[in-house]
Amino acid sequence: MKKASIVSIGNEVLSGRTVDTNAAYLSKQLLSIGIPVVGFYTVPDETDAIVRALKLAAADADIVLATGGLGPTDDDLTRQAFSEFLGVELQLHDELLRKMEDFFAGRNLKMPEKNKIQAYIPAGAKALPNNFGTAPGIMAKVKEKLLVALPGVPSEMKQMLEESVLPELRQLPGRQAVAVRKLRCFGAGESTIAELLGPVMQRGRNPLINCTVKYGVINLDIIATAENTNKARQMADNDEKSLRKTLGELVFGAAEQTLAEVVGQELARQKKTLAIAESCTGGTLAGLLTDIPGASRYFTYGWVTYGNDAKISELGIPADLLDKHGAVSEQVADAMARAARKKAAADFAIGITGIAGPTGGNEQKPVGLVHISVDSNNGCKTKRCLFSHDRKHIRLRAAQTALNMLRLILEI
Amino acid sequence: MKKASIVSIGNEVLSGRTVDTNAAYLSKQLLSIGIPVVGFYTVPDETDAIVRALKLAAADADIVLATGGLGPTDDDLTRQAFSEFLGVELQLHDELLRKMEDFFAGRNLKMPEKNKIQAYIPAGAKALPNNFGTAPGIMAKVKEKLLVALPGVPSEMKQMLEESVLPELRQLPGRQAVAVRKLRCFGAGESTIAELLGPVMQRGRNPLINCTVKYGVINLDIIATAENTNKARQMADNDEKSLRKTLGELVFGAAEQTLAEVVGQELARQKKTLAIAESCTGGTLAGLLTDIPGASRYFTYGWVTYGNDAKISELGIPADLLDKHGAVSEQVADAMARAARKKAAADFAIGITGIAGPTGGNEQKPVGLVHISVDSNNGCKTKRCLFSHDRKHIRLRAAQTALNMLRLILEI
Repeated sequence: MKKASIVSIGNEVLSGRTVDTNAAYLSKQLLSIGIPVVGFYTVPDETDAIVRALKLAAADADIVLATGGLGPTDDDLTRQAFSEFLGVELQLHDELLRKMEDFFAGRNLKMPEKNKIQAYIPAGAKALPNNFGTAPGIMAKVKEKLLVALPGVPSEMKQMLEESVLPELRQLPGRQAVAVRKLRCFGAGESTIAELLGPVMQRGRNPLINCTVKYGVINLDIIATAENTNKARQMADNDEKSLRKTLGELVFGAAEQTLAEVVGQELARQKKTLAIAESCTGGTLAGLLTDIPGASRYFTYGWVTYGNDAKISELGIPADLLDKHGAVSEQVADAMARAARKKAAADFAIGITGIAGPTGGNEQKPVGLVHISVDSNNGCKTKRCLFSHDRKHIRLRAAQTALNMLRLILEI
Repeated sequence: MKKASIVSIGNEVLSGRTVDTNAAYLSKQLLSIGIPVVGFYTVPDETDAIVRALKLAAADADIVLATGGLGPTDDDLTRQAFSEFLGVELQLHDELLRKMEDFFAGRNLKMPEKNKIQAYIPAGAKALPNNFGTAPGIMAKVKEKLLVALPGVPSEMKQMLEESVLPELRQLPGRQAVAVRKLRCFGAGESTIAELLGPVMQRGRNPLINCTVKYGVINLDIIATAENTNKARQMADNDEKSLRKTLGELVFGAAEQTLAEVVGQELARQKKTLAIAESCTGGTLAGLLTDIPGASRYFTYGWVTYGNDAKISELGIPADLLDKHGAVSEQVADAMARAARKKAAADFAIGITGIAGPTGGNEQKPVGLVHISVDSNNGCKTKRCLFSHDRKHIRLRAAQTALNMLRLILEI
């Protein structure tokens, strides 16, 4: 099986000023044509460091993709590093120079002298056209390895990858077919999911099951590799079926779906409506719902009753209920959900009240305590939750948990 | 001068599913205390690959920071790789195990057997406490080098860096003094800011001015390097003064401050209150406001009137106003702000209505059109905006623009 390594070149990446999204993009593109990436190397704008990284990358893999360092300034050294690595001179390409002069002439500009360096390519290598800028890419073959330099500007890199590199890579023999299926789960931690799944999570298994977690949402990627596409798809589909069976209602969706999306789709399908009354989440849940295009089909009323006065005047929560149980209580969450459903004449309503922190907690009611109620024709369901991490995490987990409660009621 | 290398561990990073923001974050933090990062290595969840990267990273640098692979599942192998690299056994720490059991007990959960592995640390190394999760970090000293393993979850990584790693690194001798000042601007694009600032933006200048932009907020980092702290601070302060003068009211804050934060602080200081009525932003603005701890001092009432019925019943917007001008109109934004201010008896109120897309636009009222009104004692100010990009961008830009209007009214 062919493998690839990626070399990211540039002080702006290494100093943290720019987050390297190129490497992740390239990796996904390569994996989609059956070429896994085995390592990223990120290096400064220094010839020695680039040459060293090229050597390490080429030792790991059959294909090395480098990005960055092809600009016209003195700290753009990828051309020099490639020629040093290949052991050849840089050569001026007249045609590239002419194209570059045309690029500037077309914009009524004189080409700065500095840009001329971009018309130099290591002897024997191929220049890759750049439709969006002046920096050509470089492609060279050496000892059965394919070595490619792409611009660091994402739009230029993507265009060159699509038009000049992927077609070349698709010709390579010895690629394997890959099929990917993605499941999303909510309602259990990573370790519980791992225990439920048991041996399928083992490393080196094919299909490979990858597990990542973000704000309580567990992403399971099923990556099947086989000699042909049909076989890979079949393997991935079989695994998906078996994982769905094992995980049951923990699975809420596939691919990049969010809880707000699957709940919204189901509400729209059932022609039901939802109202929400938020205290500690303060608009976060409404924000998640309305992130989804077309949310107005099922969501039209939301209240952010962040203080007791708003809970009393806007939702009619009795002042003595607030006095007796406190704003953060099961009773108030229930009353908020019921009031929201009634006022909006909605089929479902959610009430959330809690302590997002960092202050405001005590022993009985600590930071992270959140009461969530979902009211419907079948009465009011309430859940007492204790979330950890910071304020942002607590608020987001509370909003997601509310959506998950509604999902289970909707039987998605 | 001390140098550092970063090792990012995880198949999710290498396969491109997760963009590695940890490396950039760590690099910025290290640079801010005078430790430049000379290389990133990104490797899969495989012990051999991790050990090889640790060796390469340690050859380059005095400090190696690794992230990821500390979870409880079989593909979390950083503990094993560290012990192999250090040439020592993993040892069970009873105290870590007890803490972990307490963590689960506090949530009324039984600790899954899998989690026990997280209580193992290479012999002689130090466990770093994790306030937000079960995975402790690891710190080891070997041959004058400092080796650290941090969790891959960004919030856990940041907390551990701040509390356990930076204090240790600040003790190291041989660092250059660095002073960083950060300004945040809103109300003009990146290129306008660059034109206003002119030659100070040049590469290689000391202090270095770094400019990044996210959802309309321009971050300017002023990084001064000098032989001692006083000198570096003085250089950075001088630059900050001159940038503030040039940019005037475009500057809204320093460091990591958000618009919601500076507006909130000023409202609290002036003992004023704010109410908001949102349509197209659907809770996004309320969410930004309540992200700030203590927001209940100035924000207690919010309405998400996402449909016309809610605008009529909850805010008393006249149906004929909606008929005549449409929900997306200056008149309705004004009426929403006025109604919210009146109902909440607040000093200020914001009304937002617009078309977040991707559908719902037409030639007169295209996607991205948003009307924002701020009502106060001095009457109602309204702004017609046309935002581009996608739904998420349009909603966030609208919410930020509303906060910026209020900021200018509050004369911050």
